[in-house]
Amino acid sequence: MKQNYAVCRLFVLPGLLLIGSLNLNAQEKTKFLNAAESDPIKMGWMTGAPPAKDRTVYFEDGSFFQFPALRWSAAHMRQFMPTTNVSRGLGNVNPLAKNIRKEIDQIKFIPLGETKAMTWQESLQKVYADGVIVMQHGKIVYEQYFGALKEDGQHAAMSVTKSLTGTLGIMLAKEGLIDTSKLVSHYIPELKNSAFGDATVRQVMDMTTALQFSEDYADPNAEIWKFSAAGNPLPKPKDYNGPKTYYEYLPTVKKNGVHGTAFGYKTVNSDVLGWIIARVTRKTVAEVLSEKIWRKLGTEQDAYYSVDAVGTPFAGGGFNMGLRDMARFGQLVLNNGFANGKQIIPKSAIDDIRKGGSKAAFEKANYTLLKGWSYRNMWWITHNEDGAFCARGVHGQVIYIDPKADMVIVRFSSNPVASNSANDPYSLPAYHALAKFLMANK
Amino acid sequence: MKQNYAVCRLFVLPGLLLIGSLNLNAQEKTKFLNAAESDPIKMGWMTGAPPAKDRTVYFEDGSFFQFPALRWSAAHMRQFMPTTNVSRGLGNVNPLAKNIRKEIDQIKFIPLGETKAMTWQESLQKVYADGVIVMQHGKIVYEQYFGALKEDGQHAAMSVTKSLTGTLGIMLAKEGLIDTSKLVSHYIPELKNSAFGDATVRQVMDMTTALQFSEDYADPNAEIWKFSAAGNPLPKPKDYNGPKTYYEYLPTVKKNGVHGTAFGYKTVNSDVLGWIIARVTRKTVAEVLSEKIWRKLGTEQDAYYSVDAVGTPFAGGGFNMGLRDMARFGQLVLNNGFANGKQIIPKSAIDDIRKGGSKAAFEKANYTLLKGWSYRNMWWITHNEDGAFCARGVHGQVIYIDPKADMVIVRFSSNPVASNSANDPYSLPAYHALAKFLMANK
Repeated sequence: MKQNYAVCRLFVLPGLLLIGSLNLNAQEKTKFLNAAESDPIKMGWMTGAPPAKDRTVYFEDGSFFQFPALRWSAAHMRQFMPTTNVSRGLGNVNPLAKNIRKEIDQIKFIPLGETKAMTWQESLQKVYADGVIVMQHGKIVYEQYFGALKEDGQHAAMSVTKSLTGTLGIMLAKEGLIDTSKLVSHYIPELKNSAFGDATVRQVMDMTTALQFSEDYADPNAEIWKFSAAGNPLPKPKDYNGPKTYYEYLPTVKKNGVHGTAFGYKTVNSDVLGWIIARVTRKTVAEVLSEKIWRKLGTEQDAYYSVDAVGTPFAGGGFNMGLRDMARFGQLVLNNGFANGKQIIPKSAIDDIRKGGSKAAFEKANYTLLKGWSYRNMWWITHNEDGAFCARGVHGQVIYIDPKADMVIVRFSSNPVASNSANDPYSLPAYHALAKFLMANK
Repeated sequence: MKQNYAVCRLFVLPGLLLIGSLNLNAQEKTKFLNAAESDPIKMGWMTGAPPAKDRTVYFEDGSFFQFPALRWSAAHMRQFMPTTNVSRGLGNVNPLAKNIRKEIDQIKFIPLGETKAMTWQESLQKVYADGVIVMQHGKIVYEQYFGALKEDGQHAAMSVTKSLTGTLGIMLAKEGLIDTSKLVSHYIPELKNSAFGDATVRQVMDMTTALQFSEDYADPNAEIWKFSAAGNPLPKPKDYNGPKTYYEYLPTVKKNGVHGTAFGYKTVNSDVLGWIIARVTRKTVAEVLSEKIWRKLGTEQDAYYSVDAVGTPFAGGGFNMGLRDMARFGQLVLNNGFANGKQIIPKSAIDDIRKGGSKAAFEKANYTLLKGWSYRNMWWITHNEDGAFCARGVHGQVIYIDPKADMVIVRFSSNPVASNSANDPYSLPAYHALAKFLMANK
């Protein structure tokens, strides 16, 4: 796989997970330990009293997030940073029925750009999966845990977080609390003089804002570094005089171009939407997610967000949850917002996601593996024959929903390569093969 | 209340909660907002997008822990620091039956050192209670939440943490994993040349070690500052060359006197016991607590510990949990270790706690309000006619177990005065009056 185009990547600075663009050639040339070799439990990261020096990693220098330590850290993010709880409440768990199909492991597919078939089981090693659940007709048909993730643990969802933010946004729109045709500055006057001032909420939700937001890591003046520094919950250096929180940073984002014409995958859009959600509800995004979804869904675990120095949840990438709860959420979306005996999300909100965004705008972003896709309410819409759509996070996090196959795939991973371009060749055709198998074996 | 003796106090430095001794005259002369005036929800701490400047507090400068912000922070500790989860697992909750007795609010008692009677209800305001549950015969007879604590929230347990550590210690002793008659250095060779080197595990568990561990905050060379700096999870300053973790600090503690002769309430003992627990189990204290108690008890929420820079749970004061789960734990201890259909803690371990420690050793610590008490396995034993014993944390945290009345009282508080000497006059006689009432009204 040789890819020269800019791809989505999660970049970690002390205290902040950032999604940017990066030419991954350098990373792709690196030879990484494979999944078995990098097994975080066998490697013994952060284990022992005290842990061994060469198995100890830290937040402040970013070592916690460097592969292969990443394989441990992705399932223990709260140990490195302050977080805020997303309570499931104290109600009953909505159990997930099981109908395990062991044949799934042997399903074969041909990875994109390759010629030799690979099994589903092999693909999970290839993408460094930490946990995978497949649901068909609302039942678990496949469930596996690897690495440091346990069924009662939580894992970083990375940019899957954005799709939760977007889902809350469209829910509030359907409830009448947010008018997506209004300008962002209508809700957040603080953003009036920023790039977002004359963008509509809809443009933010579909990431068609035109932002001067460089993610060129080679450039010390790139905006990404300032965003990163602002959201870092660690004490600021004495000589630091930049923005100190997400909400101080966002008003500094400048416009570059015309809103509404091209898809541009920039994390700051999700944080602006998070700000709007917080403003109209007078609650944090964490509280809103808890009240509107987590408490109603019969989740089995609390979830959490990383926060900045003033407790603002990172709506662009800071969410962590249990694997089965991610499956519950995916199933909820597949079921048009109905789960646990309740209409939790209005069907009209799910319809709005599934209809997708502008394919023309999306095409301008030049994702060669995602031809014909679009982006809507912070979900990725494939527009394939099954009407599949997904939430995607770097290092291999995914919620993949295939309505025709009545299938949901959720996966946590800790792939050494951040970009989904590393996962997609072993994932997209695998999802397709799985859907075909399940449709043929109802 | 004028008290010149040294009292237990929780002192906060960035990243660490420390229990030390302090002459509280200065604090007691301060006029604080009362409970209603300092209601953290009404005050609006850390609320808003962003929170108001004068309602924003930080970890690094300790402002999060200053009253009245403390009233909010005590129920949101994880938002300020890295933490590690204590999983309840995914099993069923063991529900607590209720038999609410509204008359409790009107029970009267005379505070220590005063002449005028006060009601139970009034006393809760006086001690800035955030939540109180009273159990009788295994049922909830009283349950109230105040301030920022909700039934599905978690609150700092402060030094109640120590009693959990001590309980795990005596459990492991009864299971044969720890021999309390052995020297600490048998288990932790790293402590051989420290004060703990020739102390027995039993002396550590009963805090009769003779330690040179000053908690004189006026002395910049006092050991308490070094312990605090070591356990602080924030990045160390560049010119810092002291110990960087709890486990680096503890070997530096020096001996001062003869072990086994006098009770000396020093947090470092709990952290040494935590280290022994981690060493013999090859797990963190958080994992051991989860496996041995939290998962078995039918708790309704996960709990958590604050951690140092290498993820070590603060066994001396870093635990946070839900109020009803604290009630479940208290009831478990009252029931001789049996709960949720299982013998979770060996009865012999509970017996060992209840028999108490050396009264003569305790008396040397000169607690004028706690005459005749002792300290055993990190529990406070009253030796009163009811055989009551308790776990105590600064700012008003308590588990009070009265076997004769078959009663458990658990309380979270955010009293501006750290020392229990501020709570005890309004608490100890109140517990007694409550026990009398319940025994007369079975």
